[in-house]
Amino acid sequence: MGDAAGIGPEITVKALDVLKDSSDLDVLVVGDSGIIQKALDVSGVTCRINRCESAEQAEFASGTLNLVDLENLSENIFAKGEVDPAIGKAAVEYTEVAVKMALAGEVDAIVSAPVNKEAVHLAGYDFAGGTELIAHLTKCENFAMVLILGPIRLFYLTNHVSMREALEKVKKDIIIKKLRSMNEALTEMGFAEAQIGVAAFNPHCGEGGAMGREEIDEISPAIEEAQREGINAQGPFPADTIFVRGKEGAFDGILCMYHDQGNIALKLLDFGAGVTFIAGLPIIRTSVAHGTAYDIAGQGIASEDTLVAALKTAAEIARKKGRVH
Amino acid sequence: MGDAAGIGPEITVKALDVLKDSSDLDVLVVGDSGIIQKALDVSGVTCRINRCESAEQAEFASGTLNLVDLENLSENIFAKGEVDPAIGKAAVEYTEVAVKMALAGEVDAIVSAPVNKEAVHLAGYDFAGGTELIAHLTKCENFAMVLILGPIRLFYLTNHVSMREALEKVKKDIIIKKLRSMNEALTEMGFAEAQIGVAAFNPHCGEGGAMGREEIDEISPAIEEAQREGINAQGPFPADTIFVRGKEGAFDGILCMYHDQGNIALKLLDFGAGVTFIAGLPIIRTSVAHGTAYDIAGQGIASEDTLVAALKTAAEIARKKGRVH
Repeated sequence: MGDAAGIGPEITVKALDVLKDSSDLDVLVVGDSGIIQKALDVSGVTCRINRCESAEQAEFASGTLNLVDLENLSENIFAKGEVDPAIGKAAVEYTEVAVKMALAGEVDAIVSAPVNKEAVHLAGYDFAGGTELIAHLTKCENFAMVLILGPIRLFYLTNHVSMREALEKVKKDIIIKKLRSMNEALTEMGFAEAQIGVAAFNPHCGEGGAMGREEIDEISPAIEEAQREGINAQGPFPADTIFVRGKEGAFDGILCMYHDQGNIALKLLDFGAGVTFIAGLPIIRTSVAHGTAYDIAGQGIASEDTLVAALKTAAEIARKKGRVH
Repeated sequence: MGDAAGIGPEITVKALDVLKDSSDLDVLVVGDSGIIQKALDVSGVTCRINRCESAEQAEFASGTLNLVDLENLSENIFAKGEVDPAIGKAAVEYTEVAVKMALAGEVDAIVSAPVNKEAVHLAGYDFAGGTELIAHLTKCENFAMVLILGPIRLFYLTNHVSMREALEKVKKDIIIKKLRSMNEALTEMGFAEAQIGVAAFNPHCGEGGAMGREEIDEISPAIEEAQREGINAQGPFPADTIFVRGKEGAFDGILCMYHDQGNIALKLLDFGAGVTFIAGLPIIRTSVAHGTAYDIAGQGIASEDTLVAALKTAAEIARKKGRVH
C-alpha cells in the first residue's frame, strides 16, 4: 500500500474496487488495517477486510479485501501529507514482506504503490529509491527499468544526470550494452523478436553531421553492432517523431538518449503516469511511475488508473512467463 | 502558393474553400494560373479564378479565387514531387511580389505555403530558408521566430544546432536577450503583459544543482534580470511539465532551451503542424510549419488545416495591430 502519508492506501482500495470482478487478477494487500480502513472510508469503497497471514488464507471474492496486516502504524497518521520516518520504515516493511512472498513463490508478482524516498532515507535506509530496495532484497545487481505507457515501452540511456553528463554518455559501448539489456527485458516481457527503436540525440538526427556527430560516430555503429548480434534495433530516428510512431505501436521498445527526451513525451501522451517494470529480477515487480502526492492525500480524489494499469501489467507479464498459480 | 512541386497549391485552394464564407478574411493568391487550375481539379474545389494585378482588382466573394498570376511555370510540372530549380525560383518570385504588396500597404499580411529550401538553393538564392528570404526582402535583421500551436507559442533559445552547441548557449546573457525579443514579439501579437514560461535545461530543473547547474548559474539569474526590466518571465520549470501547463493556457509564450525540447512536445500536442510567425518585421507574415510533402503532392489528400490556421493567425495579428483595411 506504499507510504501511508500519501495517496497509496486510497488508490489501493480504489484500484481493488475497480478490479473486484476480474477473475484473473487475485490481489493480496500488504499494509496496515487501520490505515486501509481509513482509506476505505474516504474513498467510499465498501468491502470486508479479510486479514490473512499468507496467500493460502486469502478469499478471492468480489467485496473482500485480503490484507496481510503488519499492524505497524497508527491509523491517526493516515494521509498525514508529510515526510515521516516511521511511515517510511513501515513502507519498507510492506515491500520486504511482499518480496519474501514473491521469492517463496507464494504470489506471482508484486506491485508497489508510491513510496516517499525522503521518508525511507530518514528511516535510516540507504537506497536511492524503491527499485534499489527491491534489487537489494532480491540480491540482484543487473536490472533494467522500463516505463510502460499504453503501447509504448521506454528505456533510458541515462536518466537522473545533468545534460552535460548525458551528452558524455552517448557512446557506442554504452549504447550497445543498453540495447542488449533492453532486448533481454523485452524478451522477459513476452516479445520474442522485439522491435527496438532508437532515438537520435541531436535535432534532425544530426542532419548528416551538420547538427552534431553522435548519430554518425556512436549511435549508428552501436545499432549496427547490435543488429549483428541478432538484436532487432532500428534507427536512429529524430526524437520529435519517434514517439508519434511509438504511439501508433511501431516499436516494442524505444531507447531514449536522456531523461527529458522520454519524459516530455510521456507527460503529453495521455496514457496516465505510466507503469514501471524492473526487468532482470528473480521476481516480477511493477509500480506506479507517480509519487505520493501528499498535497491531495486523504481526499479520496487521487486517480487509481495507473495502479490498475500496474496490477494488470504485472498479471500479464506473469502469464507470459508462465508464472501464474 | 509556395513550391508548385509540393502540396502548396492544393492546400491553398482547399484552405480558400474552407474560408470562402469568412467575411473578415479576404485572400489574394500569388501564383501561377495553370498550376492553380490543376490544384482545383485534384482537390475537387469549384471556383472561378479572377486574375488580378493588384488588390484593387480583387473581387472578394464566395466562389471567387483572386489570383495575382505571375505565369512563371508550365502546368505540366504541377505536383512533380521533385526538387526543381525552376520551381524554386518561381516560389521566390511569389514571395517577392507578396512582400512588395505588404510593404506598399496593399495587403495587411502575407501567408506562405511551403517552399523547398533545396530548390531555392539550386535556383541560385543564398537564403537558409523562407524566413531569411523575407528578412532580406524587408531589410530586417532583428526578428524572432514564434511557433504557434493552438494556445501555445513556442520560442527557441537555439534551434538547428547540435546538442553540444545548444549546451554552450545556455548562458545568462543569451537568455536575457531572447527574453527581451520574446516580450517584444508577444507585445506585437497583442499580449500587453505577456506571461512568459521558461523551460529548464536539465532534468528536474537540475534538482538544486545535483543534475546540472545551468538553472542556478544561468537561467534563474536571466529570469530575475528580465523581471527587473519589467518582463513577466517565470521559471525555470521542468521541461516535462511546462508543455502540459502550456496546453492548459498557463503562458502566453514558452521559451525552449533547444530544438527537440519544443519539437517533441509539438508533435504530440495534436494542434496540427503549427503556424510560424516572424515577429520584428515591418510586415505581418505567417507560414505553415510543415514542408512540401512531395510524397503525397497532387493527390488532393494533404490537409489544409495548418494553412487555414496560418491565414486566421495572420488576420488576427493584423487586427490586433490595427492594420486591417
